[in-house]
Amino acid sequence: MDKLQLDQHISKQFNADLEGLKTQLLEMGGLVEQQVSDALKAIESGDSSLADRVIVNESEVDSREVSLDEDCTLVLARRQPAASDLRMVLAVAKANRDLERMGDEAQKIAKMALALSEGGDTKGYSEVRHIGSIVKVMIGQALDAFARYDVQTALEVAQQDKNVDREYKSALRELMTYMMEDPRSISKVMNVMWALRSLERIGDHAQNIAEHIIYLVRGLDVRHTSVSEMERQLNKDG
Amino acid sequence: MDKLQLDQHISKQFNADLEGLKTQLLEMGGLVEQQVSDALKAIESGDSSLADRVIVNESEVDSREVSLDEDCTLVLARRQPAASDLRMVLAVAKANRDLERMGDEAQKIAKMALALSEGGDTKGYSEVRHIGSIVKVMIGQALDAFARYDVQTALEVAQQDKNVDREYKSALRELMTYMMEDPRSISKVMNVMWALRSLERIGDHAQNIAEHIIYLVRGLDVRHTSVSEMERQLNKDG
Repeated sequence: MDKLQLDQHISKQFNADLEGLKTQLLEMGGLVEQQVSDALKAIESGDSSLADRVIVNESEVDSREVSLDEDCTLVLARRQPAASDLRMVLAVAKANRDLERMGDEAQKIAKMALALSEGGDTKGYSEVRHIGSIVKVMIGQALDAFARYDVQTALEVAQQDKNVDREYKSALRELMTYMMEDPRSISKVMNVMWALRSLERIGDHAQNIAEHIIYLVRGLDVRHTSVSEMERQLNKDG
Repeated sequence: MDKLQLDQHISKQFNADLEGLKTQLLEMGGLVEQQVSDALKAIESGDSSLADRVIVNESEVDSREVSLDEDCTLVLARRQPAASDLRMVLAVAKANRDLERMGDEAQKIAKMALALSEGGDTKGYSEVRHIGSIVKVMIGQALDAFARYDVQTALEVAQQDKNVDREYKSALRELMTYMMEDPRSISKVMNVMWALRSLERIGDHAQNIAEHIIYLVRGLDVRHTSVSEMERQLNKDG
């Protein structure tokens, strides 16, 4: 595993500040992970009160994002970090924004769950479950990789995202065929499609977080880089 | 119009650095504006070579994002800005990311334009044109507001986004009805729906940029705040 050497600080308070940002990020991550998980459960079980709870909790995600972002700005202003400390603060700020977007998508899935809770046809649910389970693993791995500054796990998240994209496209094709065969299913199946779209977006954000971790630990900007190219660069430098 | 008082710097180079970031952001914005405009033109005209150009140019948007983000980090590391200078650098970095996302969505629209360029039914095109024209104005206004640190124009962008959301939902409902009536149109109409979805996302990103400007000029974090609440806060402080 990669070890991130944060700069040595004369000030213990500075260390505490940086650790505090990371702790807040991981707590935010835990909350978002729960939101995604609950939203998926709400679709599966048709539990509209669970869907409602996800929708209500979204404001908690939002206020945590604002508060962590403010704290990042405060640390930048007060401590004027450089080198790996600066990368740390910026990586937290960026990952924070990705987590908030994931929370948005979880809320959208919960809204679809409400629309779907009327019952009836469950076409596409197995795809939601399947892609949902991959995406949940990705979120957990991304948070874990951040906690341990673990580039290899971050890389696995990026690899998984290709999987999600493939499964997503194949699910869309199948659902489109189904709608053509049974036009009465259109409005219901469209809701399932929007939920799948949100899952695909959540996967993208998990990949973004993985990229922020690689940037933080290695100083490499791997955005817009293919996974195989990422692997090559990381092995070269590793 | 609000005037942003950046701190007075002993170093002329520091001023030049900050101006340089802003110039890069506005250039990036101009490129993204063109991409969105070309992608919409490609749908309208069925011009697949124009769609191809948008898809190719996306890598230019990506590399500009990476380069501007690096420059923001460099200014933070070298100049250790505080107060409004720090907000300036962070606002540029955030707006940069929103512009890159807009570029992604423009590329998605171009891909839909390719799929649609086979000709045939043009159901939903007038909605694409209508929402597209609002969104283009929003991008222009957001960039203009950033160039002039103009909070009132930023607020107009946020107000417009509610309009986009309303028009988007109404277009989706109409297209869904159309698909039910004519199931053979499903795959074509779905492509139009994805293009509309991308436009709605672009509107969201324009609103985000507006919020970064308000934060920059007024130091107010208005994310997750309703437009009427934004107006209230800005008038109170203005």
